[in-house]
This record gives sequence, C-alpha cells and structure tokens, in this order.
Amino acid sequence: MSTTAVTALVLDLAGTFAFALNGALTAVRVARLDIVGVVTLGMITALGGGILRDVLLGALPPATFSDWRYLVVAAVGGLVAFGLSRQLERLATPITVFDALGLGLFAVTGASRALALGAGAGQAVLLGALTAVGGGTLRDVLVRRVPTVLSSELYAIPALLGAGVVVVADRLGAGALVPSLVGAALCIAVRLVGVRLRLEAPHPPGRPDADPE
Amino acid sequence: MSTTAVTALVLDLAGTFAFALNGALTAVRVARLDIVGVVTLGMITALGGGILRDVLLGALPPATFSDWRYLVVAAVGGLVAFGLSRQLERLATPITVFDALGLGLFAVTGASRALALGAGAGQAVLLGALTAVGGGTLRDVLVRRVPTVLSSELYAIPALLGAGVVVVADRLGAGALVPSLVGAALCIAVRLVGVRLRLEAPHPPGRPDADPE
Amino acid sequence: MSTTAVTALVLDLAGTFAFALNGALTAVRVARLDIVGVVTLGMITALGGGILRDVLLGALPPATFSDWRYLVVAAVGGLVAFGLSRQLERLATPITVFDALGLGLFAVTGASRALALGAGAGQAVLLGALTAVGGGTLRDVLVRRVPTVLSSELYAIPALLGAGVVVVADRLGAGALVPSLVGAALCIAVRLVGVRLRLEAPHPPGRPDADPE
Repeated sequence: MSTTAVTALVLDLAGTFAFALNGALTAVRVARLDIVGVVTLGMITALGGGILRDVLLGALPPATFSDWRYLVVAAVGGLVAFGLSRQLERLATPITVFDALGLGLFAVTGASRALALGAGAGQAVLLGALTAVGGGTLRDVLVRRVPTVLSSELYAIPALLGAGVVVVADRLGAGALVPSLVGAALCIAVRLVGVRLRLEAPHPPGRPDADPE
Repeated sequence: MSTTAVTALVLDLAGTFAFALNGALTAVRVARLDIVGVVTLGMITALGGGILRDVLLGALPPATFSDWRYLVVAAVGGLVAFGLSRQLERLATPITVFDALGLGLFAVTGASRALALGAGAGQAVLLGALTAVGGGTLRDVLVRRVPTVLSSELYAIPALLGAGVVVVADRLGAGALVPSLVGAALCIAVRLVGVRLRLEAPHPPGRPDADPE
Repeated sequence: MSTTAVTALVLDLAGTFAFALNGALTAVRVARLDIVGVVTLGMITALGGGILRDVLLGALPPATFSDWRYLVVAAVGGLVAFGLSRQLERLATPITVFDALGLGLFAVTGASRALALGAGAGQAVLLGALTAVGGGTLRDVLVRRVPTVLSSELYAIPALLGAGVVVVADRLGAGALVPSLVGAALCIAVRLVGVRLRLEAPHPPGRPDADPE
C-alpha cells in the first residue's frame, strides 16, 4: 500500500470517527434514543456521505461494504459517544467541532476518491462536497431537523472549498498529501469561524436579516 | 445530434429550470433560508428526480454529473428565484405553476430516457412518474413537509398519465416529439385543474371527507 | 425454478404484502391521506428496503423493476388495507404485527439475496437487516416520524438476528428453507416480545430511564 493510499485511508477513517461521534451525540441530545438508536444514527452519519458518493459514481457495493474498517470505526465512534455522553452532551461545542472535522476530512477524501474513479474536475468538487454534507443531511432528516446544509451558517461553501483545493492541486500535478491537509484545514477553519461569528450568506432581498422569527 | 435528441434535451432542461425555480421559491417561502440554502434546495428539487431514475436504471454516474448543462440550468434557476423572490413569494401561484410544469416535462422525458436505456413499458411509466415526483419529494422531506405526492390533490396520477402517453406512443411506433408534448400538456393540465378544483382521489371509507382536522 | 427459489420468492412476496398493509394502514391512521397517498405509502414501505439493498449491491435495476409480481403484490396490499381501513385502523395491533412479519421475512430474504449476489457474511447480515428496516424507515421519514429503527423497542436487533441465522446456516452448508423459517420466526418473536414488554436497549448513562419527557 503506497503512502498516498495510507494517508487517504487514515484521513477517511478519522472523518468517519468524527462523524460517528457527532451523530451519536446528536442522537443523545436531540432525540433521547437508546443505545441501538444512538449507534445507528452515529453509523448513518459517518457512512452516509461516502455511500451516497459511491452510489452516484456507480462504485458498488460502496467502499463501506467492502472494507470492514469503516464499519468498525463508525461503530466504535458511536459506542464511545454513548459511553461519554454524560460528559459531552452538556457541551454543544464537541458536536460542532466533530461535525466540522468530519466535514473537512470528507470533503478532501471524497474529492480524491471521485478523481481516482475517473470523475472530471467539476464532478469531483461536487462529489467531495456531497460526501462531506451527505451523512449530516441524513442525520438531520432522521431526527426531523431542517438539514444544516440548508439552514446553517456557512456549511456547503467550506466543503466546496476543501474539495476544490484537492481538485486544483491534482490538475496542477501536485502531490496528494499536502493539498489534502490544506483543503481539510481550510474547510474546518472556515466552518468554525462561520459558526463562531454567526456568518451567513446573504438572505433574499427585501427581507431584513435581523428579522426575528 | 438528432432532432429527437435536441427536443428531449430542451424539454428536460426546461423541466429542470421550472423545478429549480419552484424549489428555490419554496426555500424562501417555507424555510427562510440564505442564498446557499435557497440555491441548494432549488438544485435538489431540479436534479433529484433524474438522479433517482438513473440510480434505479443503473445508468451511473447520473446524467446530471456527465452533462454540465443540467447543473448550470439548475443553479441559474435557483439564483433567478432568489433574486426575484420579493416579487414572487407573495404569490402562491408561481410555485404551483412551476411545479406543474416540471411535473409534466419530467414525466415524459423520464419515461423516454427509461425506454432509451432498455426498460420495459411498465417500468418506463413508473420511472417517468418517479422522475417527475422525485425531486419534489426530496424537497418536501428536507423542509419537513408531508410530500405532495402523498398528501396533495392529484399529483402522482397526472405524472403516470404523462409518462403513459409517451410509452404507448413508443409501442405504437409513433415519433417522440408530438407524444412528448401531448403527454406533458396532459399532465400539466390535469395537475392544474386538480389544484384549482381541489379534486382529490377518494378517501378511506367511513371517514367523512369534510372532517375538520 | 428450484424449490429453494420458489420458497425464497414466496417468503419475499409475503413480506412485501405485510409491509404494504402496514404502510397503507399507517397512511390512513397517521396522515389521513387519500387513496393514491395510501397506496403509494404502502408500496414505498413494501418495496423500499429491497430497492435500497439492490442499489447498494449494484444489482440494478432492482428486482422490483424486473419482476412485476412485487409491484402487483405491493399495490394489492395497499388497496386491501385501504378497503379494510375502517375495520383495521382502530386497532394498533395489526399495524405492529404486519410490521413484525415484514421485518422477519425481509431480514432472511434480504440476507439470502445478498449471499446469492456474492456478498460476504458480514455484508449479508447488514444488508438483510437493511432490507428489513429500510422500507419502514422511508415510511416514517415521509410521514414525519422519528424512524422506528432509531426510536423503538428492539427493532434493528431482531432484524440482525434473523439475517444472522440465514448467513450462519449458509456458511455451515445447511439448506436454505429451514434456516429462513427459523430466522424469520426468531426475528418476529423477538420483535413482538420487545413491543409487548416494552423492552428497550440501555439508555445513555446518567439519564434516568423513567425520565418523563
């Protein structure tokens, strides 16, 4: 296994773990589920984005089902979050941070995988962003929230940025490792700054932004 | 490119544009999203039905990802709706009309594409209807409404009718253009008449239709 | 057609019928839909799990679209439930029982189909469980409930058990019929006992189980 492949796997599994923690904590906090529900929601959040990407690429069965490490990491993440929920659930911060980590890591690994499977540049950017936002969107639909990708401060944009860095670097013939780290860091930073400063993209004209709902 | 292929592409892009306007206006009206959320919901509404159809047909990656015109038209539709939302949002009518246009156009283009990819007659009717109702169903799930296809006045039935016209014409060896236009017009007309007259299919026996909820 | 294939088909169609009844009754009870909505929700509940499984296995188009018997059985199930809804809807029991029957039957037929298409043992267990819980999860999302698989007394666990029986028996070289019946019966029994006794898997530590919401 080449260094590149190992790096890609490590980043992908790290993203899987971050999203599993996030999804499981969301299950505890929002929906008060039992252990099966908590671990299931953690696994769906962790694996959903990659599954959607592989379905659209026609790379079936999805990597998740041919490589057990993803399932194991996702399940362990869900169990860890379940066990630590008393410590973690009062803090909204861990949920946000794990979500941003998963977003950045999946944006770059999703784009890389799309390129490796022969997707064009634009497709790879979109599929990277879809990998990043897909699992969280399934999570939100299942616990009946309007998905973060639609409602939140900057979410889709940092994912597109992170995936874009990887794709541009690939077209310029740069290596894979540094652009992946840069892209992921950029995405995570933009996302967290957006949450911190409550930045939002423009609202429809004629509708005051400060409109109290 | 043959005349038939050009016609099919034009009808398909017109349906994409109509659904992008509809989804983006829904985002403004129902969920008060920012520009990213508005355009994202417009694009999902516009592209979702065709993606579902292509996934079920195994035609991967979906046409959307191999043909950039769909993405561009969907994004432009979302942006136009965002810009015009002040003018359009107070009117419920444009949302309904764009939805009906998309429904009719996608019913016939979805059925045609299913036939072109080797589906049988019954499958093509179903996949045409799925193309027509799929994007709107994703839209409704994401903004947490019971999907129109389940709850509304005639919605699935006109889609099945429109797709049926194309499939019957194909089996009779008629050309593609006229049946597509007839099927789309029939679907749009039945849908709009249904909305106007508040027609509904029968309710379960023993339950008064006028039951106030 | 071999006895095994006939058996598999009969069990699969029985599961389809049970889930169609369940989904259609849910539509009547929860969402007060008209006949099109009722039959549509019945068909989605009945066919959704198998479609998700076939998409993930890359077995496209899904069996549903190549074998009309599934569509017919699902549609008839929806119509029967619509016609009998006055008799059945006041009783919560039929909805629960049809759901448990579908769960058990699809867990074993889903696992068998995954094995037949070359999936490994672990994959087959997961895909069997996905077949069993998938249709009901789509049903719940469409009528805006937190899915049973996340919130309910034992639901995913009996599905995994039922699928596990089939996969273990296959690995041991046993026949297909007896393990299928045993697996389905085990799944149905565990599910119904769980509902009856309100058994739940453990809740997060530090959170009283009796916590009134």
